[in-house]
Amino acid sequence: MPSDRPQPAFVLVRPQMGENIGAAARAMWNFGLDRMRVVAPRDGWPSGSAVAMASGAGRLLDEAQLLGDLPAALGDCHYVYATTARGRELTKPIFSPEEAMRDAARRIGEGQKVAVMFGPERAGLENDDVVRASAIITVPVNPQFPSLNLAQCVLLTAYEWRRAADAVPEGHVHMHNTQWADQVEIEALAAHYDAQMQEAGFFYPDHKAANMRQTLRNFWSRMPLTQADTRLLHGILRQMVRWKDRGGGGA
Amino acid sequence: MPSDRPQPAFVLVRPQMGENIGAAARAMWNFGLDRMRVVAPRDGWPSGSAVAMASGAGRLLDEAQLLGDLPAALGDCHYVYATTARGRELTKPIFSPEEAMRDAARRIGEGQKVAVMFGPERAGLENDDVVRASAIITVPVNPQFPSLNLAQCVLLTAYEWRRAADAVPEGHVHMHNTQWADQVEIEALAAHYDAQMQEAGFFYPDHKAANMRQTLRNFWSRMPLTQADTRLLHGILRQMVRWKDRGGGGA
Repeated sequence: MPSDRPQPAFVLVRPQMGENIGAAARAMWNFGLDRMRVVAPRDGWPSGSAVAMASGAGRLLDEAQLLGDLPAALGDCHYVYATTARGRELTKPIFSPEEAMRDAARRIGEGQKVAVMFGPERAGLENDDVVRASAIITVPVNPQFPSLNLAQCVLLTAYEWRRAADAVPEGHVHMHNTQWADQVEIEALAAHYDAQMQEAGFFYPDHKAANMRQTLRNFWSRMPLTQADTRLLHGILRQMVRWKDRGGGGA
Repeated sequence: MPSDRPQPAFVLVRPQMGENIGAAARAMWNFGLDRMRVVAPRDGWPSGSAVAMASGAGRLLDEAQLLGDLPAALGDCHYVYATTARGRELTKPIFSPEEAMRDAARRIGEGQKVAVMFGPERAGLENDDVVRASAIITVPVNPQFPSLNLAQCVLLTAYEWRRAADAVPEGHVHMHNTQWADQVEIEALAAHYDAQMQEAGFFYPDHKAANMRQTLRNFWSRMPLTQADTRLLHGILRQMVRWKDRGGGGA
């Protein structure tokens, strides 16, 4: 059984080599983290090569959740970080690993569920993944040699988690008792706006449509939305549709 | 040539596998460190397997100093740290990696020469090595699984060096080149939605209208909106109005 100590889930997105999944499990468990989620691993699941590499951390693989896509992997989470060296063209908070794990510790202390996404070995997370994150984590590597591998990135993030979790709480809690929207609710809101604005002809001209949709999707994940906020935003859109359907251009 | 940026030397003491020496070189260079010293490597020097693993960090191996014993390797240093999970029976300051690298940055800033020792893969530094150190570095690993390998230990120490040397002010969110919306823009956005939703009949029933308007107005101020976000949100609303004005309920 995973430990019951509150902690972030580490989500490996489309990992390629089993060895790297095993090394990531070791790196997590080195710092006491044991909740791994694996999204669409290239070479299938379970992975013998992952188990062989994980050695003393094999339990994490036995207990890992296997998921088919990213929305399924993030559904229950209120706040999601994406580890990426790029993505700066997306408007999104950028944290160092230390800042991010302090922020995560505070959120988890307030009862939020938190996840950290790690991309595939070769190419890292794609923009379509990153738009689903609330914030970005960028490790301050040497710009001449920014070649951290998957397990190293997991190791540094886990190390910072441990440091943040062990630190004395700073004692300020804000927006206590807030019911934050989870990723299922964010996804539903984004889908509602995407579909309705598509119908309304918002994504125009065609050659800009893909970029506009990505910008809008990114916007929803970046906002700190409560469940009440998502109801409000659904309500606004539904009301505009009703208003249109009543007809009578003008008012 | 090694960079002339002042920095600690990383001293690999009796390393065993060439692959691990190469991985250590990569980990150093990931964080901009390029002064390696190698003491009595088990499999000789130079090491083909180290070079193969180091790839883009091969220069560190070409420029590494090979030394026969520890006193020769540490001779020019004013202050030396030993990375070890043990050694607590020795009376010696014990630092976390962060504390140690902050201390090192201060010393180097004062003109001292500093080194960090890393032990052989299997057994780590012996007490005869550790006694030559001024202080100990212990990584706060999970006591149930304290199995950091050599390159991981180098990676975490190099990462902390980089953080200490850069001394980036902490605790604020970076959103590079972000043009945040000012209060005039927030107010205009709020007024646009208030007026349009009023017209669309959103604030209903009447006895709840005041509260609903307040909730919506509060929402806009609570969100971390950029200027681009406000344009997006104005655009969504204008498009819904155009869509209505085109008429033809339903689509």
